[in-house]
Amino acid sequence: MADIMTAAMIVIGDEILSGRTKDRNIGHLADVMAAIGIDLKEVRIVPDEEDEIVAAVNALRARYDYVFTTGGIGPTHDDITADSVAKAFGVACDYHPATYALMAAHYAGRGIEFNEARKRMARLPDGAEPIANPVSIAPGFRIGNVHVMAGVPAIFQAMLDNVVPTLRTGQKLVSATVHCPYGEGMIGEPLAEIQKAHPDTIIGSYPKYLDGSFWTELVVRARSEAALEAARAAVQALVDSLAAAPR
Amino acid sequence: MADIMTAAMIVIGDEILSGRTKDRNIGHLADVMAAIGIDLKEVRIVPDEEDEIVAAVNALRARYDYVFTTGGIGPTHDDITADSVAKAFGVACDYHPATYALMAAHYAGRGIEFNEARKRMARLPDGAEPIANPVSIAPGFRIGNVHVMAGVPAIFQAMLDNVVPTLRTGQKLVSATVHCPYGEGMIGEPLAEIQKAHPDTIIGSYPKYLDGSFWTELVVRARSEAALEAARAAVQALVDSLAAAPR
Repeated sequence: MADIMTAAMIVIGDEILSGRTKDRNIGHLADVMAAIGIDLKEVRIVPDEEDEIVAAVNALRARYDYVFTTGGIGPTHDDITADSVAKAFGVACDYHPATYALMAAHYAGRGIEFNEARKRMARLPDGAEPIANPVSIAPGFRIGNVHVMAGVPAIFQAMLDNVVPTLRTGQKLVSATVHCPYGEGMIGEPLAEIQKAHPDTIIGSYPKYLDGSFWTELVVRARSEAALEAARAAVQALVDSLAAAPR
Repeated sequence: MADIMTAAMIVIGDEILSGRTKDRNIGHLADVMAAIGIDLKEVRIVPDEEDEIVAAVNALRARYDYVFTTGGIGPTHDDITADSVAKAFGVACDYHPATYALMAAHYAGRGIEFNEARKRMARLPDGAEPIANPVSIAPGFRIGNVHVMAGVPAIFQAMLDNVVPTLRTGQKLVSATVHCPYGEGMIGEPLAEIQKAHPDTIIGSYPKYLDGSFWTELVVRARSEAALEAARAAVQALVDSLAAAPR
């Protein structure tokens, strides 16, 4: 039986906290982690402040198998992720020779000046390995179990595609959904009994509300198909039994 | 001069971490906080696990003026927010008489059984005050500086509308945006100089990428209109100066 692998995410971004930009990276990482069998256990959104980034990186890298960050790796003064992650690991942040050469060649080939701002993006914490960026050349990087990626969704997704094959994945959670056309108030007690009778599953109840009506999505998750099916059948039987019952 | 008021948010939800549901409450809270002049400084998404909720509540309520939580206050076995928040505050979680009476009358009036699952939603931490829920009756609650609200967006928004008038707001950040039709690499150095020259502002640079082209949104934020306008004018002059310059 494979181990359970865990992950956390750090979104570095004043623009998310100010409401100016609506994050789209959390949902994407959650989908990818679920698909490959790594449990995303926590997400933190922190401001563009060194102390906050250092604290989040050190808290989460100690607790989870993998940490993924987005944001703050561009060429401007508010891009402080590389320096902050270096500080979290207690290492210096310097020009990475291979990255510097790659970027110099990229800009030279396009007749664009490789100026100081662009050179900032060739700085990686000592010991870090670059994560290739097929969109705009300047890489992310991995140091220890921390993967540092861009905040622009198209670039984040491209970098993550390059990271996924390097990850050790765990035993995948399988899931099944039972649609319940009633609100949670009708099913709370018997559903708790089903959860107790199926301790090797996680049964989630997600209330939905639209135009004055409630319904509920009941999601069963398990590490084995047999456990999943036993609990799913019990939940479905509960919902079926309600069709004829008084509300 | 008014104080600066700060807030943090805790999203309690396995369904967000699993990717099944895409969060819509973070962006809404961020917008509302920005509009009323409270700085949202941190967001954590945690699973439906008591220890995680307790740790997040206690870490954040000590650091920020206000904490807002969403999720986990329904009638099913996986709704453990009220008990977890009670534990974080070291108090019991019991039936709240006024809430119990309100809910009993609500269900009686509709001929719906006030069963054990529904009664769970009348349990509040000792000392908590309910936050009215105009959508589906079962309230959120406030205890200390922690405001506990529903995860269903329509209900969260209605509860938050009831909370906002009770908050002490700080001096509002004003902001101005300068559109820059170039990537960040062209502006990194002079923009850093402008930030240095305007230390009473926060200048953010937000790269955008669409269909192979980069552009940048430059956002200046300040607590006074005068400081804002001085920095905004400098940033606009920088962008204007680039129109004729080589890339």
